[in-house]
Formats: sequence, C-alpha cells, structure tokens
Amino acid sequence: MTHIIRNIVRPSPEQQKMAAEFPPATLHEAQARRGAIDHSIRPIYNGMTVCGPAVTVTCAPGDNLMLIAALDVCQPGDVLVVSAGGLREQGGFGEVLSTACMAKGIAGLVIDACVRDGEAIHKLGFPVFATGLAMQGTVKETLGTVNAPIVLGGIYIEPGDIISGDDDGLVVVRKDDIEETCRESRTRDNKEAVMMHKLREGANMLELTGLRSVLEKKGCVWE
Amino acid sequence: MTHIIRNIVRPSPEQQKMAAEFPPATLHEAQARRGAIDHSIRPIYNGMTVCGPAVTVTCAPGDNLMLIAALDVCQPGDVLVVSAGGLREQGGFGEVLSTACMAKGIAGLVIDACVRDGEAIHKLGFPVFATGLAMQGTVKETLGTVNAPIVLGGIYIEPGDIISGDDDGLVVVRKDDIEETCRESRTRDNKEAVMMHKLREGANMLELTGLRSVLEKKGCVWE
Amino acid sequence: MTHIIRNIVRPSPEQQKMAAEFPPATLHEAQARRGAIDHSIRPIYNGMTVCGPAVTVTCAPGDNLMLIAALDVCQPGDVLVVSAGGLREQGGFGEVLSTACMAKGIAGLVIDACVRDGEAIHKLGFPVFATGLAMQGTVKETLGTVNAPIVLGGIYIEPGDIISGDDDGLVVVRKDDIEETCRESRTRDNKEAVMMHKLREGANMLELTGLRSVLEKKGCVWE
Amino acid sequence: MTHIIRNIVRPSPEQQKMAAEFPPATLHEAQARRGAIDHSIRPIYNGMTVCGPAVTVTCAPGDNLMLIAALDVCQPGDVLVVSAGGLREQGGFGEVLSTACMAKGIAGLVIDACVRDGEAIHKLGFPVFATGLAMQGTVKETLGTVNAPIVLGGIYIEPGDIISGDDDGLVVVRKDDIEETCRESRTRDNKEAVMMHKLREGANMLELTGLRSVLEKKGCVWE
Amino acid sequence: MTHIIRNIVRPSPEQQKMAAEFPPATLHEAQARRGAIDHSIRPIYNGMTVCGPAVTVTCAPGDNLMLIAALDVCQPGDVLVVSAGGLREQGGFGEVLSTACMAKGIAGLVIDACVRDGEAIHKLGFPVFATGLAMQGTVKETLGTVNAPIVLGGIYIEPGDIISGDDDGLVVVRKDDIEETCRESRTRDNKEAVMMHKLREGANMLELTGLRSVLEKKGCVWE
Amino acid sequence: MTHIIRNIVRPSPEQQKMAAEFPPATLHEAQARRGAIDHSIRPIYNGMTVCGPAVTVTCAPGDNLMLIAALDVCQPGDVLVVSAGGLREQGGFGEVLSTACMAKGIAGLVIDACVRDGEAIHKLGFPVFATGLAMQGTVKETLGTVNAPIVLGGIYIEPGDIISGDDDGLVVVRKDDIEETCRESRTRDNKEAVMMHKLREGANMLELTGLRSVLEKKGCVWE
Repeated sequence: MTHIIRNIVRPSPEQQKMAAEFPPATLHEAQARRGAIDHSIRPIYNGMTVCGPAVTVTCAPGDNLMLIAALDVCQPGDVLVVSAGGLREQGGFGEVLSTACMAKGIAGLVIDACVRDGEAIHKLGFPVFATGLAMQGTVKETLGTVNAPIVLGGIYIEPGDIISGDDDGLVVVRKDDIEETCRESRTRDNKEAVMMHKLREGANMLELTGLRSVLEKKGCVWE
Repeated sequence: MTHIIRNIVRPSPEQQKMAAEFPPATLHEAQARRGAIDHSIRPIYNGMTVCGPAVTVTCAPGDNLMLIAALDVCQPGDVLVVSAGGLREQGGFGEVLSTACMAKGIAGLVIDACVRDGEAIHKLGFPVFATGLAMQGTVKETLGTVNAPIVLGGIYIEPGDIISGDDDGLVVVRKDDIEETCRESRTRDNKEAVMMHKLREGANMLELTGLRSVLEKKGCVWE
Repeated sequence: MTHIIRNIVRPSPEQQKMAAEFPPATLHEAQARRGAIDHSIRPIYNGMTVCGPAVTVTCAPGDNLMLIAALDVCQPGDVLVVSAGGLREQGGFGEVLSTACMAKGIAGLVIDACVRDGEAIHKLGFPVFATGLAMQGTVKETLGTVNAPIVLGGIYIEPGDIISGDDDGLVVVRKDDIEETCRESRTRDNKEAVMMHKLREGANMLELTGLRSVLEKKGCVWE
Repeated sequence: MTHIIRNIVRPSPEQQKMAAEFPPATLHEAQARRGAIDHSIRPIYNGMTVCGPAVTVTCAPGDNLMLIAALDVCQPGDVLVVSAGGLREQGGFGEVLSTACMAKGIAGLVIDACVRDGEAIHKLGFPVFATGLAMQGTVKETLGTVNAPIVLGGIYIEPGDIISGDDDGLVVVRKDDIEETCRESRTRDNKEAVMMHKLREGANMLELTGLRSVLEKKGCVWE
Repeated sequence: MTHIIRNIVRPSPEQQKMAAEFPPATLHEAQARRGAIDHSIRPIYNGMTVCGPAVTVTCAPGDNLMLIAALDVCQPGDVLVVSAGGLREQGGFGEVLSTACMAKGIAGLVIDACVRDGEAIHKLGFPVFATGLAMQGTVKETLGTVNAPIVLGGIYIEPGDIISGDDDGLVVVRKDDIEETCRESRTRDNKEAVMMHKLREGANMLELTGLRSVLEKKGCVWE
Repeated sequence: MTHIIRNIVRPSPEQQKMAAEFPPATLHEAQARRGAIDHSIRPIYNGMTVCGPAVTVTCAPGDNLMLIAALDVCQPGDVLVVSAGGLREQGGFGEVLSTACMAKGIAGLVIDACVRDGEAIHKLGFPVFATGLAMQGTVKETLGTVNAPIVLGGIYIEPGDIISGDDDGLVVVRKDDIEETCRESRTRDNKEAVMMHKLREGANMLELTGLRSVLEKKGCVWE
C-alpha cells in the first residue's frame, strides 16, 4: 500500500485564478448545487477565505502525523484538506504548523476537527477552516494517506480538486468542471448584478423573477 | 385555503418606537420571561439588531418560494419571520434577497435555517437572524403561507407581533402586551441603573438585593 | 452540610503571575495534556482572556442564587467557576452581575450555561466564558455550594485551582502543579520559538522534527 | 392570571374513537402534513400507543408541580401533554405518578423531557412519550399553567386537541379538523390497501403510481 | 446528464453469499477498519440484518421520487442505499414502499433520514437502516440519480458494492475486496473462537494477547 | 507516575448487597439527587442492570489498551468504568472482551463511548452501559490509568465507589455514603409503596402529597 503520493495533477494556474474570482456560494450554484462541504466546517474567524487545489490527507483520530508529512509534497497555492478520523475535539494544528505552512506558501488548511492557538493563527493571517477551536493536542504515531481520495464533510474529494471557502463555508469543484463552472458563475454573477440594480431602483421581486405567474399557476390564494 | 394574507394589524408607530428602546432581554424579563425564541437562532454577525412587526411565513423544507412572495405584502419597518420547514442547513436567502428587502425598507429577516452570502449581507448591513451560514440554495416550488400564525424556535407568533433581537437572541412581544411590557421595562431599567451605580460605589450585592436574609431563611450554612 | 466556604487556599501572587504568562494551550501541553475543559465553554466574544484561582459554585438548574452568594467570598483576581446544574440555555448572568464582579476586582466568569446582555458585557470588558448567549433569566430559590469541588466541562476542579482561558478554551492547573507546569511551559515556548524561526528561514518540517525517520521506521511508502 | 382551567371542550366520544382508528402517520398525511411533533419525543419503549384529548401543562424547568396539579382536572381518556420548560434531562415523572394517572384512567403522558422508573412504567403498561429516560428528579416549587395553549415539539396545541402517537411519534389533530381528517384518513387507508395488494401480486410501482410519466415529463434520462 | 443507470456490475452470487457469513464488525476489521458508515444510521428495530449489493440513490431533501424510480432497476437481493439530501427528519419510506420492495425481493433499505410506519415495517420483517422514525412524508418532484456513486454516512459507495448491517451498524465492502476481506474475516473468526474458548477456561487476557509485555515495554508502572 | 493500582478499598459484601436492592433512581433521590451520570450513557439493550464497585480506567481516544490491562486487577462483582478519552464513536469492546469479563466474574462495563458486537453481547447477557453501538475498533498503543479517580458523564468517580444502573441510567454512590443512602432508600421505597397503594384505591394526589395547600399558598388561581 502506498501512503504518500508526491505528484498530483493540479488545475492550471489560469484555472486556479479563474476559480478564485467567485465566492463559493456562486460556484456551488453554478455547478447545479453539488459539492458543498458540511457547514460545520467553517473559518475559525470570520473573514478568512481560501481557494486552491487540494492536497488530501487522512489521519488517525487524535493523530496528526500525516498532516505534517503532507507538508513535504505541497506546492505554493495548495490547500491542505485533512480528514481527521472522527475526533472532532482534537486541536492537532496550531501556531507552529501555521508558520510551517506559510513558509511553504500553502494557501490554507481545511480539517474536520478543531485547531488550537486560534489568536496566534488569526494574527498570522493563515486561513483555517475547521469545526472550532480546542486546545487538546494529538500524537504522531499512525500512518495514513496523503493524496488518496477522501470524504470530508460528506463530499468526496480527489487530490487536485479546487477547494474554495469563505464565511459561507466550503465547496469542492472537480478538476474537470472548473471551466464550465466558472463560465456559468460569470453568467449568474452578471444576471444577479442586473437584478440587484433593478431592485435598488424599485423593481418588484415577483415581477422581476417571474414568480408571480408561478404562484398563480400553483393556485396561490391571496386575501 | 388562503395562502397569502395581504393586510395585517400592526402596532402603532409609537408602540413600535417604544419597543425599540429596550434590548430583548429586558422585554423578556418585563413580560414575566415569556416569548424567548430558541437561542440557536442568532444574528449571523455579532452586533446586528432588529425590532419591528412580524410578517410571518411558512416555507416547505429547502424551498423559499413563500419567502419571496412575502416581500409583496411587507411595509417599511416590518420583520420577515420565516419558518423554514425543518431543513436548517439550507441557505435560501442571500445578497439578492437582502437587496430586495432593503429596497423595500424591511427591518430584518428571522429564519430557523441558514442563509448564504454572509459577507455580502454583512457589508450591506441588513440584519439577519438565522441558525448559521451555509451555501446550499433552495428551490421555488411549493406553496405555504404568509401571515398565518407560525411556531418559530418554540414560540407561537402571530403576524404583527413585535420581534426584537440582538446578540442575546430574539423575543416576541404580543401586540396587546406592548405598552405594559414597555412600562415594566422602563421600571426595570431604572432600577438596574440605580443598582449598578451603587455597586460601582462599593455596595454589597447580597445586601443590595436582600438575598442575605433569603439565604439565611433557607438555612444556608457558612463556614 | 456546609453550603458556603469562605476561606480557601489560593496560589501565591507569584504563582498566579507565572501562570498568566502562558496561553492555556501551552499550559495544557505542559502538564501532559490534562485539564482541558470541554470546548463548548468558550469566550462569549473572541479575544477575551482570563487567568486566576477558581471560586467554585454549584447552582440548581435555572437558579443563580449561589452565583450571587459567591460574590461575598471572592477576592480580587479570583475567577468565578459555576456549574449551572444542566440547564445550558439559561442566562442567569448579565450586565448587573458583571458590574458587581468588576467592582470587586473579580477576573472573570466561567459557566456551563448561557449568559445574557452580551453586548453590554462586551462593552464593559468583563471576560465571560460560557456556552453562548441567551436571554432567559433564572430564579433565586435553591441552596447549592460555594467552594466545594465541582465537575465542569468534564474536569474536576477544586477551589483555588488556576483557571486559564482564551479563544482556545479553558484549562485547569492544580494548585500543586503550577510551578512545574510553568517551567515546562517555558521550555516548550522557547523550543517552539526556535522551531518557528527556523521554519520561516526555510527549514524542512520533517527534518526539524525528526519525523522523517519516524515515518520510515513505520514503513511509510512514498510514491 | 389564571393558572388552572378546570373545564375544557373535548371532542365527542365518537370523534375520539374515530381518531383512534388510524395511526398518527396516516392522520398527519390526511391533514396535509400538519401537526407532527418533533420526532425526538418518542415512546420510551417501542410499541406504546396513545390517542385522546390533550390536557396541556407548562412547568418551570426541573419542576413538576403543575404536572401533578393537572391530574386534578383530567378525565378518563385524556392525555397529559407537558411542556417541561427546557430542561430535557429531568425525570420528573415515574412509577408513582404513572400509578396516579392509571388510577384516574388517563390515557398517556407526553412530555418534552426525560422520565424515570422506565422499567416499572413499562411493566405497568402506561404509555409515555418523552425525550428519553433519566433519573434526575424535580422540585415542586413554581406555578405554571394547566389548559392554556402550549407549544410542544414545535407544534401549537390547545386543550382538547387530539394527540395521537405510536413508534412513528406524535401528531396533533385540531378539534375542528377531526372529522374531515378521519374521512380523508379512511380514503387514504383504502387506497393504500388496494395498492399494496396489487404490489404483492406483482404490479410495477412506477405504473401504479403514474410516476413513470412524471419522470418522463421532467426529462429523466435512463441509460 | 444521465439520471438512472439500469445495469450495474454486481458481485457474483458466491461472493454475496460469502460476505453474508460474517457480521459487519468482522468485515470492517478484516479490511483494515475501512468502510464503517456513521453509526447514526441504524436498524430501526434491534435485530434487523442486511447484506447485498448496493443500488445507490440520491434524492433531493424531502423528496422520494428517485427512491421509487430505483425500484425499477433493482434485482432480488439488492440493497437500496439512499442519500436523502440532508433532511434527516423526513419519513419518505413506509409500509407501501416496504411492500413494493418485498414483492421485488429487495434485501433491505439504507437511508440517511427517518422512515415511517415503523410498527408495520417491523411486522412485515423488512430490514430498514435509518436515522430513526418520523411521520413527515415527502414530495415526488425532483430528479436525482440512481446508480451514480454516492457518499452516505461519510463513506463513498459505488453501485454494486456490498452493504452489510446489523445492530452494530453498516459497513461497505468494495466489489474488488470481497474475496480477500472474507478470507481475512474467516481467519479472524477462527482466531477469536480459539481465544474465547481459552478465556472461558481461565486464560489470562494479558498473556493470551501478549499485551503484558507491550505494557512493560511502554514503561507501565504497577503499584 | 503510577499507571495501574492493583489494590483498592471496596465496600463490604454486605454493603454491595444492600446497594443492589434499590434501583438507581431511588439511590439518586436518597442521596439528595447527587451522582447521576449523563443519561447518554445507557444500557445497550433495554433491561440490562448492573451494581458493584468501580474499577476506574482512562484510555486514550480510540485506544483500549488500559481497558484490557484493567481486567488483571478486577475481582468478581467489580464494574469496569472506562473514560474513553473523547472518541464516542469507537467500539473498542466486543464479544471477546465480554467473554473475558464474564470468565472473571466482572459484573458489567460502563464506558463513555460505543461498543460493538451488540447482538453477541446481548446473547451472552453481559451488562454494558455505553453511548451506543458502533463497529469501529481501537488500537492498543497508549498508556493511561487504572484505579485513578476519573470523571465520567460529568461525575467524579473514585475506585471502589458503587456504580448502579438500569434503563434509567447510572448513579454513583460514594463508598462512605452507602449505608446512609440505603437506609434513606428503604424509607423512600416504603413511603412510595404506601402512596401507590392509596392511589390505586382512589386517593387524590394533591391531598396525598399535601400539594393542594402548597398551590394555595403560592397563589394558584383555579378557574
């Protein structure tokens, strides 16, 4: 069995840049509402954002050995995406590992567990998406995998898939879907900008969306 | 069956103004600790406040059709209060609908589900009380009700009842109770201001509250 | 049965000062990962910190009588640590009690329940660690204990033990362990500072930590 | 303020009998999917069923005074429906109160909290719907209400409404809706019996329900 | 986009029979502790068991259209495995659908949501693994997928993978791993039978497992 | 540091027998409502009961090494009480360990985590109190403690304390409190038997308990 895969296929720099132009909620809508990671995995402080190709990791519960090993195969711009093995209260990532990540140009961490040193990480400005803050550390004892496919927050993720997050949470965009998803995101963005402009000028929402006739067809009774 | 009731009885502008003078925790105490909505429904960012008459809405799970329909019957100062049908992870309200609400002068949104576009809503400054942020959208397929009575966060709410919220959460004040609740709130506020003044000057809390003799009567043993 | 114990043994001022030099996550690691209170008890606003000897309190559910009684035996620098009896939604602590605590020089409140008047407490700057904000108040009816040992967030706490908290949550340091824990914390801090310096200069994490050879011994297969 | 209302309007014996003929899931469907109480309130042992008019009670958290007071106004066949004030772990109902209920011919207990003496209640055969079993008792200190409207498990209930429960949970049928709901239930039951007969004889579900053409219209692609 | 795939590769009848010889906990251990579905998905009554190839389904929340469509492509012995879209309280499967499944020889249902008609299903003897019982029904409105890969309870499942469940919960065995997993299961079973025989005859657990010397090597101090 | 303490002080056989005469809910009431372990730790099948002196164990999360080590110091009648380190989904106890426990005459297992092989344990008749059933196993890697004091389900437990459980959950009786608690339990049992006899003969609950005059004094208004 292979534990660590060094080389993965990443989206092109152009594709990565393109995906970063849209907030995750738009990407999610644009790809037919697929790929939203469970919303209990959130930025540890409001305002953090992340977008980049996933380096996927599986750890044993309460064990961060493979998270550290994964640093060795990351490239600048990558996002570390860690399945922590089911112990959501652990805090096996903190100031030292944030410093190591930033030194390597890693774009952010996503983990289905807690992290610690919250204030220090906040000050460093390293984007971390986690289930919360907790101080309990981890051991470094058990082998797992780096760059095998994982399931995180209910979503299947392959290494190199785009992970994009902000206060709304995280979405996964498959490598092969990036360009179509971004085109569709652009269309939606433009459409919504026009709609909001009209609303600010006093347009009626039910007319603007055509929902008045939808309501009528469904037999809606107004009193 | 009627789905949408256009005209409801709202408290007078004076009553609305009066209720807005007190934080929800004070209103809640003043009406004998009734009306507190479950505290899992909170401002999506700290510091948001809301106070106004409820326009009540019931949606099907994962469906925001009636939320949009309700915009048509709102007046400036109203609060949209939405029972989302049990799917707390949906995010069927975001930047576009916030813009529509603000254009109509709506005072805020209360919903027992998640919303999305958190950062954009924050920037717009529209007060939203929800169970969190999540990007999953909704469909617009199913009829429900606007301005029928609803249950939200364990509290029965009729259209036109006052909804008041801040970081402590939300309270409902029945239309008929507003004046008495506000009088009692004023009394409490004054009493607490005096008490805090005395405490800052060194008064003893057990003496100030008369609780020392209460403890004594209950047989409290000091060592 | 004794309800309230007036006099407890506190760590010396030097010991208290020493403990306050380290964040709770460091103290926790330094004492072999013991003493972390369940991370659902958190600062009610990010950035609050606390460190001092515990005055321990047990209340009946929905009853804050003993919390108020405990003020009578607190000294400046103490931390009120309250086991609220299992009703986590209550808000039996707010602006008035915060004012009373600050007038007595109390360092902070820790409670396994909600509190209210969040914004007012935030403005006052009184550190409160709780399970959240909620407006429901409490009665003042039932005797409990002050300065008996308690269990809070899964940790056994004796009066006079040090409670230290920040955004990462809370840790308990036994009176007898303070000096050794602080020595070990100092050692860890220094070691981590060196490590972070080296990382910023480009050191390899697996080399720096010796984990590359650990991975090798465990049979890690790289591809 | 009135605490206890002795006399309430109950459905007629015929109406009560009629409602008891259908399982709660059928009643729920028959009244357009309204009235389902949150499914965390369940029979404490599988196989318990209940059906009868509600005597509604509100208790303070951890206090069963009004539950006991309510016994005084119950008639044979009534169901005690108790809003326990938010302390779901309490067990303020056990063998003694079950015995008292059975002596009065009460049909069952519904409460949004735990109860105790599970095995004894099971042996007695008294139907109890609760959030679980727990041994913590309650005090008898605080006034509340009997036969005022309540909200339980998200549903608004008036005294005399029918409460019907089995392993699927509980449903409320408004007094005024009983006859129409039962007629519709009968129709559904007959329709489902025919459908199940045909299925057992080999009918195709998509043909039987007409859903094959629905799928087609929605553009379903088969491979 | 294809919605429904009719033909999938199933394990051979011999492989299916082989997998059914072992309880899911043994299969899970035998394949290196992979594939355990989140334990909140359980038999709705103790004692239900299931084992067979998965027909995978994704539904929209609160919508069981695709669950019904999937019946059309099931073969005797198949297990319906349904990702319900995140609305865990729905009960979109009951007596009628159980009857339809049994008429087709389907081996069981697995769903990350509630089901209804619990007692009727229990009487029919159809094995159902779900998050509980609840009466709320579903609509039949939205297209999804049949026999596309899904994620359920944190595990990635492809059509034709073996699903095996009992009171311990559910495990997934990949089609390609069945034979090796069963061989390893056989070995473990035999080893455990010998071990239990020796234990019943008085053997010492620490000697039998060799853990006494493990404890010693780790520096365990006995007093 | 000592890991395993071989010899502990147990209650006398007479004391153990005495405690076993009462259900845990009675013991809990009799000692002033102290000692109830969180009710999420329950018998894995209804009807299991346990009573005996605690052998206390702390494991690392997902690691059952010390649970096995503890078998070496157990005597017949002891109850294994295991703090599992925070990973509630693990199943590090099953048929083999049940067999080992029964061979040594151990009275039962209490653990704040899941166990596996539910049906096999049920058939063996070994009483297990846990947070549920799950198949995930554990490793055997990390030292912890045997017969040090622990906190379990919010209660502080010393080795040799009595643990008593049934469907209502678990209670801890301190070694020094056994005789007084049992005397008080006897008194309560007799009083309740008389009360239930009178209720069955038609006595009025409010008269029998004296609560009618309590209601009156509190100003209860009947209508």
